[in-house]
Amino acid sequence: MRIAVVGVGLIGGSIGLAARALGHEVVGFDADARVLVQARERGAVDAGAARLAAALAGADAAFVAAPVGVLPAVVQATLDAAQSGCVVSDVGSTKRTLIAASADERFVGGHPLAGAETAGVRHARAELFRGATWYLTPATGTSGVLYERLHRLLAAFGAQPTAIDAGEHDRVMSSVSHLPHVLANVLVAQAARALGEDAERLPAIGPSFRDATRVAGANGAIWTDIYLANRDALIAGIDDVGARLARVREALLAGDREALASWNEGAAEDRRALLEAGVAGGPVHELRASVPNRPGVIADIALALGRANVNIVDMALSPSAGGTQGVVALWIRGDEQADRACELISGQGIPVARA
Amino acid sequence: MRIAVVGVGLIGGSIGLAARALGHEVVGFDADARVLVQARERGAVDAGAARLAAALAGADAAFVAAPVGVLPAVVQATLDAAQSGCVVSDVGSTKRTLIAASADERFVGGHPLAGAETAGVRHARAELFRGATWYLTPATGTSGVLYERLHRLLAAFGAQPTAIDAGEHDRVMSSVSHLPHVLANVLVAQAARALGEDAERLPAIGPSFRDATRVAGANGAIWTDIYLANRDALIAGIDDVGARLARVREALLAGDREALASWNEGAAEDRRALLEAGVAGGPVHELRASVPNRPGVIADIALALGRANVNIVDMALSPSAGGTQGVVALWIRGDEQADRACELISGQGIPVARA
Repeated sequence: MRIAVVGVGLIGGSIGLAARALGHEVVGFDADARVLVQARERGAVDAGAARLAAALAGADAAFVAAPVGVLPAVVQATLDAAQSGCVVSDVGSTKRTLIAASADERFVGGHPLAGAETAGVRHARAELFRGATWYLTPATGTSGVLYERLHRLLAAFGAQPTAIDAGEHDRVMSSVSHLPHVLANVLVAQAARALGEDAERLPAIGPSFRDATRVAGANGAIWTDIYLANRDALIAGIDDVGARLARVREALLAGDREALASWNEGAAEDRRALLEAGVAGGPVHELRASVPNRPGVIADIALALGRANVNIVDMALSPSAGGTQGVVALWIRGDEQADRACELISGQGIPVARA
Repeated sequence: MRIAVVGVGLIGGSIGLAARALGHEVVGFDADARVLVQARERGAVDAGAARLAAALAGADAAFVAAPVGVLPAVVQATLDAAQSGCVVSDVGSTKRTLIAASADERFVGGHPLAGAETAGVRHARAELFRGATWYLTPATGTSGVLYERLHRLLAAFGAQPTAIDAGEHDRVMSSVSHLPHVLANVLVAQAARALGEDAERLPAIGPSFRDATRVAGANGAIWTDIYLANRDALIAGIDDVGARLARVREALLAGDREALASWNEGAAEDRRALLEAGVAGGPVHELRASVPNRPGVIADIALALGRANVNIVDMALSPSAGGTQGVVALWIRGDEQADRACELISGQGIPVARA
């Protein structure tokens, strides 16, 4: 396969390395020509293109790894330059800003949950995505063939591609990432101010404070964009936190021991449930579904399974000769998960069987 | 020395082990007789007393390690049972609730910042306090002789005794511990609810969420008491967080990139400043101050140095024969810190010199 990487930083460079390790040909483009030189030296691309169109020429898949702030524009330019059979994805940490691009059957929004502590192609590595959830946000118009190609490629990187609705993705990320960052920033600011001139006499920052503020003031160039791109979900999250704090405040003011104890116990249960979620194991089952050849059917299946937290380990699509029907093979880990997948697919009126 | 430990759990048991390792005699008391048996088996006490008064008989120092909720009552009972020359301290994580006891010249509030992930005397160990800040909250009436005895004992445990005003202590702890716990609870609750029925489909909790919520739902038996005992400072902290969140919300709503960027940058600076604070090193200097023999003078010096983040590595008090004057030797780490200590002590009208 020929793969275009648009923006060759840590993530783009790691995609290049992972793809090249699989034997694919990778052409890179970057707004900064020096970065492209580094990417070649690092072995993250076979060649660098001076213009976006040149990078896309003949590409079967393209990844846009540009900053969130310019992402919609670069994705659109990439779609304009890409050929008809090229799947285009991105790696941005918010997804609803790309809703316009989702009207294009070649576009599938993406977001690998992979480390970004260090930036730049110098830190890129082929193993970055191994074991990482890689969210995909197919839309109703998404081409099943192109979705499957992307899914298989990401699975080959060692990632776990997981379909999710774009809006749901942004709410999830607001809850589990953006809001914790906001609260970390608020915590350090209040501590610095609360201690006032005595700030210097804080000899022993406890582990709870260290943990809670580890991400405070994270890379501003990236995070300002993320906060803005996901501001609707983030504002909703801030309002929710405000309402919850108001209730704790009330219980404190009233000296309501029972309310505080049950609130604290609830938090313990919530954390347990959240951390235990999504831990799946067991043998891998192959399912085969006969799908009508209409746009969006693969995306529908992927989203339905994603919504139920059923992880598709791998997938393969075989269009029929006649072109009206096809077979999609799905590999699902875990007995229960495979049963659930059969149910969900049958529920969509699609015949499915264990292979 | 004969040392009484009232409440022989993780902290009380570790005090017993540390004291016995130094050759002191330790008598324990616990409301639960079985715990006392375990403490003897663990070697945390030389003997267990069936009644509080028996544990205090002849004691030179007493540590009350009872739950925060009953702490004021148990401290008072301990003071009632202790002889006139016995220094009484506690290990509670809030200090203003003990303000009544501080009227007694024998009482010095205390709070070791040492791990409490695991509870019970079974997990007690002599090294628990090594390197840990151990806050002390002497009051104006505190006996200098008894304060010095306590300070030296804690330093011998390997801890860093640090004098701090009780109210200031509670504000600091609210900022760096209690509030992070509250926000962790709020974060997990909002995530669990925001994801609603989809909570189970949270396949990949990011590191920022894990870090920020590590303490969510911490031991309810302990934390409900802590929240209540420190509710004034905690309510002030919650109000401050609310006001800060409102400003972030406003910037998000207005799409104010500059405001968000500078807020984020401020958080990065605050964190850096907070974590770098209190890191002191250098050679240890001995200072000798001639102090008038009046109550509170040692507490005043300790508080003044504590406030300036000057750490007293060790101290020794030699009352003069006449009883009107004494000499206190202070060991201070770091050239700059020793200079600062001289300044501060001279500033109180007390003659001081490098030894």
